[in-house]
Amino acid sequence: RSGEMAKLTQLIDNEVFRAYATYTTIVLLKMMLMSLITAYFRITRKAFVNPEDTASFGKGENAKKYLRTDPDVERVRRGHLNDLENIVPFLGIGLLYALSGPELYTALLHFRIFTGARITHTFAYLIPLPQPSRGLSWAAGYAVTISMAYKVLKTALYL
Amino acid sequence: RSGEMAKLTQLIDNEVFRAYATYTTIVLLKMMLMSLITAYFRITRKAFVNPEDTASFGKGENAKKYLRTDPDVERVRRGHLNDLENIVPFLGIGLLYALSGPELYTALLHFRIFTGARITHTFAYLIPLPQPSRGLSWAAGYAVTISMAYKVLKTALYL
Amino acid sequence: RSGEMAKLTQLIDNEVFRAYATYTTIVLLKMMLMSLITAYFRITRKAFVNPEDTASFGKGENAKKYLRTDPDVERVRRGHLNDLENIVPFLGIGLLYALSGPELYTALLHFRIFTGARITHTFAYLIPLPQPSRGLSWAAGYAVTISMAYKVLKTALYL
Repeated sequence: RSGEMAKLTQLIDNEVFRAYATYTTIVLLKMMLMSLITAYFRITRKAFVNPEDTASFGKGENAKKYLRTDPDVERVRRGHLNDLENIVPFLGIGLLYALSGPELYTALLHFRIFTGARITHTFAYLIPLPQPSRGLSWAAGYAVTISMAYKVLKTALYL
Repeated sequence: RSGEMAKLTQLIDNEVFRAYATYTTIVLLKMMLMSLITAYFRITRKAFVNPEDTASFGKGENAKKYLRTDPDVERVRRGHLNDLENIVPFLGIGLLYALSGPELYTALLHFRIFTGARITHTFAYLIPLPQPSRGLSWAAGYAVTISMAYKVLKTALYL
Repeated sequence: RSGEMAKLTQLIDNEVFRAYATYTTIVLLKMMLMSLITAYFRITRKAFVNPEDTASFGKGENAKKYLRTDPDVERVRRGHLNDLENIVPFLGIGLLYALSGPELYTALLHFRIFTGARITHTFAYLIPLPQPSRGLSWAAGYAVTISMAYKVLKTALYL
């Protein structure tokens, strides 16, 4: 049965598409890691947002004091949202770019810079590193996405 | 070079891809429902965030008192953001997984668990159910996405 | 009808797919613009959220006073989040819709209304225009996405 699948698409045999699949999966897994880091800080800092999450700490005022914001939790959450804002465009534009027939070398360059930039951005945000570390890593990922968008529009434009 | 891409045919006739299309559409519609629930609570609780949204309640202080946060509104918004954080990875990794030639039975299992987990998560968040209901439903969707990511990387890895 | 889908070759040479690629890229670039507008307001309003971002303004209390929220910054951020909530469903459902063999005319209508609606929504949010401008532009994009989801489920349903 999976043999039929292979005949059908052959997408996954295309090197550019395989590179897209690899780097997209890596960068999405990295984004998913933010959920675990948020949970880790919520538990170690005892900073929750839902009353039902503090029930195990007792009742009434005793549990209520853990319904609070914590700077470390908020920092991870901002990093997570920034991931969403930047990885969603990469997901969509990168797919269309991979289907627009780029040179393998050029495509790999784009995917690698984007992935490296987002990993650097996460370290710059969470450690945190002094600016402009976070700003530059954000800009690198942004620029690569614009470059892919340009190629997509140049190849496929149909208004 | 884009000729290689040309071999792509009959995506929508492929059963695994049809299953992906079905469950992805269901889970995205479920996420879209969160916007309507937020709007419902904003209107019934009279809790708005934009001054222009309260203009129909009159002018000045009379309208200003409706610019406030409401626990029910905030709860739906947290559920919506959690959907984004988890459904975006499913959207991307699930697509690549569907193209990686999984067995139909295995693919259906992944898609069904993910969709069921996210629907359960929404009920657990909005009712709310006591923990660990929400935590477990979140973890089920997360684990299924990791499992699909593993299959994608095993099939397509090209660094 | 889904047999017609089968003839789909050379995705990027297919007119419906090219239209999807074009409008998706435009709407994702529009979403990315929100990051730049946020940065512009943060800098001109001097309203930051990370201590490391205010280091260039000096040390201690001198820099600390710029760690604050600003109504214009918050407004752009809400517009950005609303984009994420609505463009992610379009990205996924629109792709599946483009692969479900719609008429070119119908597909173009859907993509154009969605893109126009989201651009209008951004102006309505940022100027801001009086309601129901923002509400109606949001609803137009929402309705178009539901319509595409219906076509996908009608063509591909496999539970």
